[in-house]
Amino acid sequence: MDSQEFKHLGYEMIDWIADYLENGYQEGPVFPNVAPGNTLAQLPANPPQYPEPGSALFNDFKSIIVPGLTHWNDPRFFGYFPCNNSAPSVLAELLAAGVGVNTFSWITSPAATELEIRMMEWLGQMIGLEWKGVIQDTASSATLCALLSAREAMTGINFTGFAGQNQTLRVYVSDQTHSSVLKAGRVAGFGDANVVTLKTDASCTMNPQLLEDAFKADLAQGLTPCFVVATVGTTSSTAIDPVEAIAEICKRYGVWLHVDAALAGTAALLPEMRWLMTGVPQADSFLFNPHKWMFTNFDCCAYFCKDPLALKKAMALTPEYLKTQHDLAAENLRDWGLQLGRRFRALKLWFVIRSYGVEGLQQKIRLHLQMAKEFATLIGTHSHFHLIQEPVLNTVCFKLDTDALGEALLAAVNASGEAFLTHTRIEGCYVIRVSFGQTGAKVEDVARLWATLNRCL
Amino acid sequence: MDSQEFKHLGYEMIDWIADYLENGYQEGPVFPNVAPGNTLAQLPANPPQYPEPGSALFNDFKSIIVPGLTHWNDPRFFGYFPCNNSAPSVLAELLAAGVGVNTFSWITSPAATELEIRMMEWLGQMIGLEWKGVIQDTASSATLCALLSAREAMTGINFTGFAGQNQTLRVYVSDQTHSSVLKAGRVAGFGDANVVTLKTDASCTMNPQLLEDAFKADLAQGLTPCFVVATVGTTSSTAIDPVEAIAEICKRYGVWLHVDAALAGTAALLPEMRWLMTGVPQADSFLFNPHKWMFTNFDCCAYFCKDPLALKKAMALTPEYLKTQHDLAAENLRDWGLQLGRRFRALKLWFVIRSYGVEGLQQKIRLHLQMAKEFATLIGTHSHFHLIQEPVLNTVCFKLDTDALGEALLAAVNASGEAFLTHTRIEGCYVIRVSFGQTGAKVEDVARLWATLNRCL
Repeated sequence: MDSQEFKHLGYEMIDWIADYLENGYQEGPVFPNVAPGNTLAQLPANPPQYPEPGSALFNDFKSIIVPGLTHWNDPRFFGYFPCNNSAPSVLAELLAAGVGVNTFSWITSPAATELEIRMMEWLGQMIGLEWKGVIQDTASSATLCALLSAREAMTGINFTGFAGQNQTLRVYVSDQTHSSVLKAGRVAGFGDANVVTLKTDASCTMNPQLLEDAFKADLAQGLTPCFVVATVGTTSSTAIDPVEAIAEICKRYGVWLHVDAALAGTAALLPEMRWLMTGVPQADSFLFNPHKWMFTNFDCCAYFCKDPLALKKAMALTPEYLKTQHDLAAENLRDWGLQLGRRFRALKLWFVIRSYGVEGLQQKIRLHLQMAKEFATLIGTHSHFHLIQEPVLNTVCFKLDTDALGEALLAAVNASGEAFLTHTRIEGCYVIRVSFGQTGAKVEDVARLWATLNRCL
Repeated sequence: MDSQEFKHLGYEMIDWIADYLENGYQEGPVFPNVAPGNTLAQLPANPPQYPEPGSALFNDFKSIIVPGLTHWNDPRFFGYFPCNNSAPSVLAELLAAGVGVNTFSWITSPAATELEIRMMEWLGQMIGLEWKGVIQDTASSATLCALLSAREAMTGINFTGFAGQNQTLRVYVSDQTHSSVLKAGRVAGFGDANVVTLKTDASCTMNPQLLEDAFKADLAQGLTPCFVVATVGTTSSTAIDPVEAIAEICKRYGVWLHVDAALAGTAALLPEMRWLMTGVPQADSFLFNPHKWMFTNFDCCAYFCKDPLALKKAMALTPEYLKTQHDLAAENLRDWGLQLGRRFRALKLWFVIRSYGVEGLQQKIRLHLQMAKEFATLIGTHSHFHLIQEPVLNTVCFKLDTDALGEALLAAVNASGEAFLTHTRIEGCYVIRVSFGQTGAKVEDVARLWATLNRCL
């Protein structure tokens, strides 16, 4: 592909994306009407021996791939969580791909490292947290980093391994905590059996008293409390754990508190929602994902820690071929995470924050909260829809008279192509989740979704 | 940023990238002339309250960021390893950012999952490996997945944790193995003390006899051999471990063998270099990074495993909110790795392989190998340069009469801005590494580098 072909195709793609960002996927359903194997059948079994023209690539992208995508950035998408992108974010990803730098050490791209440090300071200011931070790929990785920091702050397992210790380290979550914590517990060698899951009531939040009881019970058995995860905005229903009370107990017992606000952290940009951060400064680590609800392309998880030295103690490792003369004067961000290689992710934050301005971001987030409230009001008017609770954030959860009716409605809506929804279970019941947060969301989308739901019932 | 501004800026950026890809960074040095803090000083301490125009973003990118980058994709870059991108890869990243899908489950974008499956089949065919595979972000993560697979194949640590087991699991590497294995050993709870490092001789390769001796010694002490990493193309000097002999020993002792060909795997695309894969089918897992030397933007690590069930046993976890009706019929690629969220990375492989064709890729790789050979010949002509060994791959290592002279030469070359080189230590000596593999590399670059070296001496 020569320079001319690259430019010609690039312009066409920019036009295609401009339309996609503005209008969503207009040619078809938000969730594709495909069965497993349909796309595979359209892809040759063997790689081509000789070059193909760029136009063939773009055409096949449009005709084979796009119709088989779930359109996360379409206004009809209300599934899982927002994974919203935006015009400035896409352009930043384009430039980052163009320069193709690797940001593992300061020396491997000084400006990229320093932009990342500054962007984490900006994000901290935007949500009222004065800690240092680093961009991680996902909350899964960031949570694992937090767990490893806690493990290493308490033991010398990095050197000895678990085999050289004789304590049993314990992790505490609620039954609403994200599964990535259980996975981190497996990866880091704690094991499911050492993850204590505290039952929640209808509020879906962690009960601090149960947490303290669990600490006491474990200590009485000679087990060592090590790590607690509190969630601000759970995955199922965006419930908010009482972080302040949990932090107070963790502090008293010397246990690491990590706060997972993967989705909800973005809402703390709003002064009227800043209360979401209550207690966080008393914790040890915190994350939120601008790649969820802050118009920044996946992947971009903002991970903050009270004591970066604890993180670096857990993660840093410098073989000879990575030593540089700047190791004392500059940060090498590989020492702040799992991977050696790192993408240039700060650029999209810089573009997004500057392009919208803090106020522009706030306006969009306010709109999403308003949409959730309006939709919840509509749910309340329907005799066969039962709101789980008034939404505080962007997600509305409701159930039908029976699980079977809920499952049938979800299947019908998703098959209609007019909206995409996902489900969860709360207190044993099948619950439909509606998550607002599209970059191009408009108030009218609520009425349209409401009509779809009623039509599919 | 409205649609018109997005298009206008997008075209300009495409033009800028076209020039950068074709000519490298013409306005300045390949390694920036900056001290720690220089970029930071140009970035406001606070985020803007109100929107800024897109043109300001792009201008600041060009005037603040680009002059502070290390230009990995410039033909003057010979540091570390190639991290090469290409025109089709950049366009694929643009489209992937434009649609912004998350590929954690089949249902979250069926076509993206199926394209990834097909691309891993293509890559396997291109290097002669019939295993199934998945795209990981980095070799760091893939190696950790391999270690966790080995751990879980041998124990039930995912459930019990190390505390519920009473064996001491051991990992075996050579002193040339990449540091990511040591890091994986820490993360997974083995600990440095249980990573057995086998000394290499001047060949820099693992001695199979030492490996078997280590197994025997550990077994005699009641320790359990669990995981071995063989390297095809070490980071320091691209040395190649005798995989076949190592695999035979691992098989005999029931130990998992992982083969790290992060850089060198790409060379196996050449029929005349296919011998690099000797013994790999007798191992258990294998990785190489198309994001290093196959013109595919970082991140894109191709991870293959003989038994995907072992990987899924180690990594899979399905909470209610991720259950779908397709879980039996389709692959959910989150079950093949650490993270839940996943980028749409298969698209760039599709674009790169089709745009170059296998033959086009082979031509480029052959050129890089030829450049390494020509450069090594030049080194051989110089009385104060001492070649470590004849290059088999893309990397040439040489030393000067003393370490101090080598350090001084490296510093002078990097300060010149005419080339960027990095170093390592081999058998205690300071060694300069020259790594070929730029997408836009031309034979003439060898002579230019040679002139720079002589001028800086």
